Amino acid sequence: MKEPRAAKLAVSRRLRGTPYTPRVESLGVSDYSIVNHMVLPKGFGRSVEEDYWHLKEHVQMWDVSCQRQVELKGRDAAKLMQLMTPRNIQKTEVGQCLYLPLIDDEARMLNDPVVLKLAEDRFWLSIADSDVLLWAKGLSVGMGLDVSICEPDVSPLAVQGPKSEQLMLKVFGENIKDIAFFRFKILEFSGHPLVVARSGYSRQGGFEIYLDDSSLGLSLWDALWDAGAEFNVRPGSPNLIERVEGGLLSYGNEFTQENNPLECNMQAYCSIDDNVDYIGKAALKKISDDGIKQRVKGIVFNGNKCPPCASAWPVFVNEREVGQVTTAIWSPRLEANVSLGMVIRGYWNDGQLVTIQCADGSLRDGVVRDLPL
Amino acid sequence: MKEPRAAKLAVSRRLRGTPYTPRVESLGVSDYSIVNHMVLPKGFGRSVEEDYWHLKEHVQMWDVSCQRQVELKGRDAAKLMQLMTPRNIQKTEVGQCLYLPLIDDEARMLNDPVVLKLAEDRFWLSIADSDVLLWAKGLSVGMGLDVSICEPDVSPLAVQGPKSEQLMLKVFGENIKDIAFFRFKILEFSGHPLVVARSGYSRQGGFEIYLDDSSLGLSLWDALWDAGAEFNVRPGSPNLIERVEGGLLSYGNEFTQENNPLECNMQAYCSIDDNVDYIGKAALKKISDDGIKQRVKGIVFNGNKCPPCASAWPVFVNEREVGQVTTAIWSPRLEANVSLGMVIRGYWNDGQLVTIQCADGSLRDGVVRDLPL
Repeated sequence: MKEPRAAKLAVSRRLRGTPYTPRVESLGVSDYSIVNHMVLPKGFGRSVEEDYWHLKEHVQMWDVSCQRQVELKGRDAAKLMQLMTPRNIQKTEVGQCLYLPLIDDEARMLNDPVVLKLAEDRFWLSIADSDVLLWAKGLSVGMGLDVSICEPDVSPLAVQGPKSEQLMLKVFGENIKDIAFFRFKILEFSGHPLVVARSGYSRQGGFEIYLDDSSLGLSLWDALWDAGAEFNVRPGSPNLIERVEGGLLSYGNEFTQENNPLECNMQAYCSIDDNVDYIGKAALKKISDDGIKQRVKGIVFNGNKCPPCASAWPVFVNEREVGQVTTAIWSPRLEANVSLGMVIRGYWNDGQLVTIQCADGSLRDGVVRDLPL
Repeated sequence: MKEPRAAKLAVSRRLRGTPYTPRVESLGVSDYSIVNHMVLPKGFGRSVEEDYWHLKEHVQMWDVSCQRQVELKGRDAAKLMQLMTPRNIQKTEVGQCLYLPLIDDEARMLNDPVVLKLAEDRFWLSIADSDVLLWAKGLSVGMGLDVSICEPDVSPLAVQGPKSEQLMLKVFGENIKDIAFFRFKILEFSGHPLVVARSGYSRQGGFEIYLDDSSLGLSLWDALWDAGAEFNVRPGSPNLIERVEGGLLSYGNEFTQENNPLECNMQAYCSIDDNVDYIGKAALKKISDDGIKQRVKGIVFNGNKCPPCASAWPVFVNEREVGQVTTAIWSPRLEANVSLGMVIRGYWNDGQLVTIQCADGSLRDGVVRDLPL
């Protein structure tokens, strides 16, 4: 399959706007992706490289409303949450954020949300691009559980970059400092309580504000934007260079339903021998016992700037196909192309020399690297 | 929420290409939508009006690979299929296509696929834009059913328009004539058996070829393309003008999980009093007994060409909000704007005068119409 080239995104109600869309539009959004049936602003007319350097030095506001929440609430909410993931969540505290895999009965990856424990009987799953709500509902209806499941009106706004804490301090006050990494607190904005977490899809530090009232979208955006002027704030988005260097994976890109969590470097989130029960445990234990056949690694490769990766590119060692590149982009810092991809056992060690066949047909010399790059 | 304006679609592996993408690209695709995590070509540099007139007179090839299939196979496949829909499928024959609603336990719409009964124990659900696979899997795992569920390598290619039969005859032979509306047959292409149905997302007649081997994508495309030259074949896509005039609804546009099937004019596909059991039956019966509060109607309105509808536009009668427009476009045949939308009881009769507030703020005089327009 060839690469879909740059084309316009056709407008329809089905590809939902967000509470921040008017501001994103007026700031000149030039590229959208679609995640969870919703627009994700991906560019504002600048190069990904410009955005990368800015993100590493200043602060950006990201409209990540497409990180939709699936709410589990009620008597069996915690039970269902545990059934859906191999990560042991028995000791999770209210106020914690948990990154975890969701798997099916064959231990196939269905999503990798960040879960917020709001109460003993209430969770938000901040999801990647698949309809987790339908999976949760199917299980609940099928098993007759007592849990209500919905997509609440919650639209995360991310504030990312080294100056994000200074910016957030101006809007939310000193309480911001008390939020530990991957924890959240309830802070007030205009008299409205909001979930604010120290988290985000970058390695530059930052926060995610879980706005749960769309009608406040523009005033929240404006308050942050105005406060950010002195910190050189810009609109941004998850940055492809920064994410690849940081080893942050993306569901649908680095892994799909074809993969299991052990292949995705999620061993730490897979309780196989604990006394905790979940769907897919037997299948996952078998995979673990047999040993995984491939895993996600970094691959750095030479040549001029590579084209965008719209489908998996084969990776070779001595003409044997040993893996595939799933995301690739030029890194101005490393002055090389950086990529993420699956590499099979025997070839996944740091330093392994490989050849990548890009979409343009070019063959590039590369080297497998541990993550982050 | 304001309208997302025209912006480029960001490329990634997650937004999957199709077996036909290289041909679609070389034919100059200018607009993509995203459905089921896959690109849907929506335009080729011509206006929607040009494509509309061409579709009504000639024949078009549509890459609708994004109509992904969810396969249910095994001992409990028929049982699960019936559990998922209020339509009575007990007498459905192998070789039939069935349009039907999928609902949850509260009778909310989850999708509206065309189902192909391939065998007594094997179904394909040709889905609209939601992850039906996760809903089916959740139910199956939750209820302990004996059914295997997957997304097979099937990429529908639609041939639509009044000359579609002539074109299909040249490629598939006389057997094409024996396929009745909403029936399918297994026909050979290059020695490979393919499901070919007389169906499609237009009112102009046509076929859908369910290619189940991606590696044949380009040769299938080329065979149809070459055969179509004498019929003035063009690449196309579901046409917004034709679909609105024809009253063809779209999940995510005209209705969402917020709606029930009775609001979507699917009464004929809802068995409420039969002796057939399905998820959501009690909820649907209550809705039916109480009487529905709104339903999808056509609305024709005046003024110059309206902007694209990226979010619901309010519809008023004497300043009371009585509904919303969800899809709207200029019809060159009716020389008016045509639209689909929800209208509440008491105002949904053919001929009801209304006022529509478009995204650009303009107020337009309109009239509610029965479908098709």
